[in-house]
Amino acid sequence: MAKEKKSPRPKAETPKGFRDYFGAEVTERTEMLRTIAGVYHRYGFEALESSAVETVEALGKFLPDVDRPNAGVFAWQEASEDEGKENAKPGDWLALRYDLTAPLARVYAQHRNDLPTPYRRYAMGPVWRNEKPGPGRFRQFYQCDADTVGAASVAADAEICAMLSDTLEEVGIPRGDYIVRVNNRKVLNGVLEVMGLSEEAQREAVLRTIDKFDKVGEDGVRQLLGKGRLDASGAYIDGVGLSEAQADPVVAFLTSKGADNAATLANLRAAVGASEIGSTGVDELEEIASLVGAQGYDANRIVIDPSVVRGLGYYTGPVFEAELTFEILDEKGRKRQFGSVSGGGRYDDLVKRFTGQEVPATGVSIGVDRLLAALREKGRMGRTEAGPVVVTVMDRDRMADYQTIVGELRRAGIRAEVYLGNPKNFGNQMKYADRRNSPVAIIEGSDEKARGVVQLKDLILGAEIAKSASLDEWKDRPSQYEVPRSEMVARVKAILESQR
Amino acid sequence: MAKEKKSPRPKAETPKGFRDYFGAEVTERTEMLRTIAGVYHRYGFEALESSAVETVEALGKFLPDVDRPNAGVFAWQEASEDEGKENAKPGDWLALRYDLTAPLARVYAQHRNDLPTPYRRYAMGPVWRNEKPGPGRFRQFYQCDADTVGAASVAADAEICAMLSDTLEEVGIPRGDYIVRVNNRKVLNGVLEVMGLSEEAQREAVLRTIDKFDKVGEDGVRQLLGKGRLDASGAYIDGVGLSEAQADPVVAFLTSKGADNAATLANLRAAVGASEIGSTGVDELEEIASLVGAQGYDANRIVIDPSVVRGLGYYTGPVFEAELTFEILDEKGRKRQFGSVSGGGRYDDLVKRFTGQEVPATGVSIGVDRLLAALREKGRMGRTEAGPVVVTVMDRDRMADYQTIVGELRRAGIRAEVYLGNPKNFGNQMKYADRRNSPVAIIEGSDEKARGVVQLKDLILGAEIAKSASLDEWKDRPSQYEVPRSEMVARVKAILESQR
Repeated sequence: MAKEKKSPRPKAETPKGFRDYFGAEVTERTEMLRTIAGVYHRYGFEALESSAVETVEALGKFLPDVDRPNAGVFAWQEASEDEGKENAKPGDWLALRYDLTAPLARVYAQHRNDLPTPYRRYAMGPVWRNEKPGPGRFRQFYQCDADTVGAASVAADAEICAMLSDTLEEVGIPRGDYIVRVNNRKVLNGVLEVMGLSEEAQREAVLRTIDKFDKVGEDGVRQLLGKGRLDASGAYIDGVGLSEAQADPVVAFLTSKGADNAATLANLRAAVGASEIGSTGVDELEEIASLVGAQGYDANRIVIDPSVVRGLGYYTGPVFEAELTFEILDEKGRKRQFGSVSGGGRYDDLVKRFTGQEVPATGVSIGVDRLLAALREKGRMGRTEAGPVVVTVMDRDRMADYQTIVGELRRAGIRAEVYLGNPKNFGNQMKYADRRNSPVAIIEGSDEKARGVVQLKDLILGAEIAKSASLDEWKDRPSQYEVPRSEMVARVKAILESQR
Repeated sequence: MAKEKKSPRPKAETPKGFRDYFGAEVTERTEMLRTIAGVYHRYGFEALESSAVETVEALGKFLPDVDRPNAGVFAWQEASEDEGKENAKPGDWLALRYDLTAPLARVYAQHRNDLPTPYRRYAMGPVWRNEKPGPGRFRQFYQCDADTVGAASVAADAEICAMLSDTLEEVGIPRGDYIVRVNNRKVLNGVLEVMGLSEEAQREAVLRTIDKFDKVGEDGVRQLLGKGRLDASGAYIDGVGLSEAQADPVVAFLTSKGADNAATLANLRAAVGASEIGSTGVDELEEIASLVGAQGYDANRIVIDPSVVRGLGYYTGPVFEAELTFEILDEKGRKRQFGSVSGGGRYDDLVKRFTGQEVPATGVSIGVDRLLAALREKGRMGRTEAGPVVVTVMDRDRMADYQTIVGELRRAGIRAEVYLGNPKNFGNQMKYADRRNSPVAIIEGSDEKARGVVQLKDLILGAEIAKSASLDEWKDRPSQYEVPRSEMVARVKAILESQR
């Protein structure tokens, strides 16, 4: 007779590409979001929290940076409301938001009559991407956005750049360790205009090539605009087929950064020639430079830089990117710059899908997880957080005494807990305190209780003594001593201060 | 010829049962979560943020409070990794978490070797329920949980009750306006034992009846335990079929609350008679009362109350509930108590599904949105937040001047913004300032600029003057005046202080 098969136990695992965050990973992110929200708020931006779930219809069927429709999104169909009935209407398709901009478009279109114009809003929270996960690349991650909707003036773009600069400094990136770089899609449009590319397909091929400037550099772009290029893997990539002369304006645009903003702007004016849209673009960049300059943001903080190409295909006007410029060691021990932590720009068709009206908008998104990684890399975060004071349990029947001790400590603002595991083995209690990174353990056996004292164990000092080769230097500073019960709180405070 | 049909515009709407949160709704919740996290942290609890998405397998196929399997959850199937191939493995079923306890079970089972024992953790964030939405009932809402995993001692339950009491006071519910009530499933088990109900079906029918005590009261429960009852709608509800005498112990249990904890405990001892599990349950309640009493939580804050029945079917030991006791007016203008804002208890099979081992656990969940509603009801929250100082644009070409003004204000810690809409119509700028609830508007036309002054408009005072019948009393306090440009920041600060 076959044995009855038990149903197998479920696997205790996150879905692929998801992860859990523990302790300081959570609290450091919360603190960073709070700091950023503080800056955004001071700039007059209002908080918005839209739902994580949107209809696929409202969200739009594409991500800004993937080509395939409907790819990259977690979506499902709701059960029909009149399921089983004849001619039942099918249920709505719902999806998790993949960024915070698409929901903003829906919110603005839905509530525009109740919102001020311009509407400055910030939003922070997780977004979800149904993409192949990779090392350090997760399918749920935090974004932190600020956008101004309904302001056509580039003063709104300049404000976002200034705010981005302030934000980076307030979360702990010192001046000089970051740069906000600004470019403008309109300048590029002007360049394309003077090149006389009439075919849309050709314009798009040029745009795609420009997107590779980061990776392949000037020579690579020249080859890709011309006959083509052998890439690192040995594959031959077909070129756009332009002549050297035709490619010149694009390369001039990409490499037009001069010694200062004035020089850059002059180079750009040359690159756009007689193009009207190009001239407008250069004017806008000039105005942004002048607006941020007037407020004291010099070119070491916010700079016009035509080599910023990320997002040029997506945005319609100014684009910005914040880069951290300090060097870190990559996984192979080579030095490299930390790179981009934030990007944004102007996009003027935000709500047109919904209302038919064009509404100008500009905004920025900060990659909070990358920014946290950068601060940890610089040793400005990620220190092990001090654990709680642990009150050990010497006598199971006197739990009320231990709870009273811990209550006194907490009321004095000291993080503290009673050991709640099985108290039989005192060694386990000390191991627990160690695992919790506890700074102080408190011991009150029946003997101490009778004499009105408690034992305090300075666990940080104790660990140092244990490490130290020579015990002599520590002998005048024992790591465990007796104090009157009535002085306990004050003495614990003193130990905590000595450990700082 | 038929006209070509344009694809219809998408509807700008949240999915049914979801909503957006604006401004103070977001920031007040953030502040409350921060306060609660502060208390939890002080009690030694560690933050945990698990992913919003879990496998259906890990989540379990049921909600704690619905009967149908798989109901109540938003779930979808992932595309197969080797889609299109023969014998392709089907993709995983994924789902949004419906609470924070099921993910804790998965996290603890997955990481138990790296976590301290006992593991105290807190978690806060949205959860999703695929339920029929109703008024004030949304399909995404916040929970804020604290649980202790791996502690069998009721000291852990007592600690949670004390922490819940502290938390309510720190978020702004004064002592006397709330009560934490404690009951114990084991006492009920003892009652069922002395009743001699041998059939499981009968025990379950009794449990379901007890669940209705909140609604139908003592007489109703007696009828439902006996022959049955005519409910409010006129339908006859069949009873469990017990005799009066058999029903007595259940009713004695539910109504055993005495004048103080000692009296209640004596009544419970009588109700459980010789039952061992029942006696253990009463002992546990006695210990909880003694532990919290020793720390100064009297019965006006934490009380033994056998009429707490919510969750008695779900939990395995102590259960607790926090109720706000002040009265509010319901939608029909009748007074009623605000009611429950938090519940929890002990559940000892948390990770058994995953590991086969029983791990004791106890915890609490705070309904943050209800707590916020309560504080708004009491007028302790929900005041309109002060908007930013608005710098008006009198001269489009002097945007740099206005940005400089706003930069100075922000550096002084004052929330401020430049008007970024079309500046042509000054009236629109003032309407905007009004809509933003702006306290002060700043005006610098070319005349003011030439004279080195700015105009300050005290908008709060201005609104009061506009309301006031007699203008006389205001005539010495004009709401708009000129100040030297160099004194601007100090004078704005003074106005803001006068408005407090």
